[in-house]
Amino acid sequence: MDAAVIGVGMTKFGRELEKQLPELAAEAVELALEDAGVDRRDIGYVALANVGGWSAEFFPYPIAAEYAGLIPKGGMRIEAACASGSAALHAAVMAVTSGYTDLALAIGVERMNELTTPQVVELLGRGGNFFWEFENFGLTFPAYYALFATAYMQEYGATEEDLAKIAVKNHYYGSMNPKAQFQKKITVDDVLNSRYVAWPLKLYDCSPITDGAAAAIVASEKIASKFTDTPIWIKAQGAASGTANLTMRKSLLSLESAVEAAKQAYAKAGVENPVKEFDFALVHDCFTIAEILAYEDLGFAKRGEGYKLAREEQTYIGGVIPVNLDGGLKAKGHPIGASGLGMVHEAVKQLRQEVEKGRQAPIRRGQALIHNIGGTGHFAYVTVLSLEKP
Amino acid sequence: MDAAVIGVGMTKFGRELEKQLPELAAEAVELALEDAGVDRRDIGYVALANVGGWSAEFFPYPIAAEYAGLIPKGGMRIEAACASGSAALHAAVMAVTSGYTDLALAIGVERMNELTTPQVVELLGRGGNFFWEFENFGLTFPAYYALFATAYMQEYGATEEDLAKIAVKNHYYGSMNPKAQFQKKITVDDVLNSRYVAWPLKLYDCSPITDGAAAAIVASEKIASKFTDTPIWIKAQGAASGTANLTMRKSLLSLESAVEAAKQAYAKAGVENPVKEFDFALVHDCFTIAEILAYEDLGFAKRGEGYKLAREEQTYIGGVIPVNLDGGLKAKGHPIGASGLGMVHEAVKQLRQEVEKGRQAPIRRGQALIHNIGGTGHFAYVTVLSLEKP
Repeated sequence: MDAAVIGVGMTKFGRELEKQLPELAAEAVELALEDAGVDRRDIGYVALANVGGWSAEFFPYPIAAEYAGLIPKGGMRIEAACASGSAALHAAVMAVTSGYTDLALAIGVERMNELTTPQVVELLGRGGNFFWEFENFGLTFPAYYALFATAYMQEYGATEEDLAKIAVKNHYYGSMNPKAQFQKKITVDDVLNSRYVAWPLKLYDCSPITDGAAAAIVASEKIASKFTDTPIWIKAQGAASGTANLTMRKSLLSLESAVEAAKQAYAKAGVENPVKEFDFALVHDCFTIAEILAYEDLGFAKRGEGYKLAREEQTYIGGVIPVNLDGGLKAKGHPIGASGLGMVHEAVKQLRQEVEKGRQAPIRRGQALIHNIGGTGHFAYVTVLSLEKP
Repeated sequence: MDAAVIGVGMTKFGRELEKQLPELAAEAVELALEDAGVDRRDIGYVALANVGGWSAEFFPYPIAAEYAGLIPKGGMRIEAACASGSAALHAAVMAVTSGYTDLALAIGVERMNELTTPQVVELLGRGGNFFWEFENFGLTFPAYYALFATAYMQEYGATEEDLAKIAVKNHYYGSMNPKAQFQKKITVDDVLNSRYVAWPLKLYDCSPITDGAAAAIVASEKIASKFTDTPIWIKAQGAASGTANLTMRKSLLSLESAVEAAKQAYAKAGVENPVKEFDFALVHDCFTIAEILAYEDLGFAKRGEGYKLAREEQTYIGGVIPVNLDGGLKAKGHPIGASGLGMVHEAVKQLRQEVEKGRQAPIRRGQALIHNIGGTGHFAYVTVLSLEKP
């Protein structure tokens, strides 16, 4: 049994102090239901991605589900750190492909600005390796990724300018995305002149603190075509995990979990040459270095050559493979539990050719890739979406 | 495609200050792998149930998965309040019945004694309806269930003695269960003389604060028989949700979500007369009143007559239907994220006729029922397990 996304919705990502978590979730759900033409009463299972920890409210699922009119549907909250959205999609897909239901709903929501920036930084820092690396050595989350960046620069000769070019690209596309947190172009100099957060990562190398929600409706092959002429099939999903301890990793030049998840997804989807077979990709650019590692982990470039794709601007439309045409986590924003479903929203709209001119990828193969990481590779989910039924 | 539980494991439930969360999880996993004869390398997906909030560690999955030797397997954390364990089983079953993998692992773990009792009481209180009923009206979790108890006693004439008899039964069976937190019998007078927590509920009407872990290995029909001669088939699972606001409920005499989840599960499994068709049941007795509501919500007794099953001792072995032969949450303990999988552990061992003499149910129909509630009915999961392949 196969499954397809037949509707997506998302809030504008940004700093959202006026709307509470259930309001954000309900807005995304409403848009997804409208997009699919589905009545919420026909939903058979709900997977809600939310990391939480930002407020004193203990259980996000009941308040979000109730506000979104999803009671008495069965469901659960899912957490896979910043990959929670993809994990929720995975659960919704399994709910459908197992025959449990013909219509499942995946929601991702996060409201991080409930806390101050230093509080968010502390909470996210705990999300690395709490016991040793955060508490004993004081690593913040940008500092974790700074270790990847310094290792990469030392090994391959990449520069801060190369990293900056990722941010410039993603802001460029974000400037055309009305749902993005930052809708302004920046220059390499803007990035280089921004203040250091954790050397060599500067403010503009980092994704922002974001509030937002996104949702996707997954339908069985039996009913998908009743709702839409362009179901977006979930051709394959790979999932893997990695140790939270950076000191236990074999290397800081790659996220092994991402390599493993991609291997699974490519094998299942029959992908041999990703840059030829995907019209575009959405990759987890929580920091600029993360996008470069993703190029290599996903096979867009050989080991040690990912930075050249950035340097030579090969991941713009017209290049080797367009990446993060929605602005990425960097410019579109990174409401951690919602980000994976924000990527699904973008992939579906792109494959349907419904996005703004200037950031619409040419759709030739009808196939797209999503790469969503939790922590520093604690979790990795890689999803292949396709216009063609598997 | 059908799925069966082929192995289960659990730690002794109790107050466990010597073992950290990853150690508890790994112990349950090890026992489940041994029980099934499965090599951990063959596991294809992991669902970890954990509510969390007890410690400063932000992400339970990576530390538990690493300690249990489950990296680089794909997986996710699942939270459905006190029904998290059943939700994780549901996810593992879907992972198998969807064809995603032939072997999935569901783990539940909770370590609540990290906090002091007043801190636990506060945190659980937030798990009701945080915004109105906890923060504004000061309801603790026992107080929520006390509202059900007073409504029930007022409507039907049940007494505190009737509630006490649930605790007496569950302690009686717990006294024979080496994995139970409390292994001692109590009397109705012990319950009635224990101090009030939230009238009419006394200390011995309440499940304890517990640390522990449980795990189950789910296999596809293709391979289940390679591992065991007695696979325990998951014949049906129903899942539903309810508003967290007690003030919004139609009635306090029933958990509507449990009724809905049971309806789904019974329809799928073809159950018409539960007391005749199940050899035993495990129900969510977080408080004694909850077990009585479960009798009615599950159709063991007519509305308003559940307390008579307690009064007439009809849920002991030899009665209408034996319930909570492991001691229930009341005596076995209630490590909230693990409890649902603790029930699976018991159901599997009972169906295989592997439990201690004196608390082994006669197995005639080879079919058992699990009822697992999150919050005050925010989540409900009802599972039908069977010796017979569906």
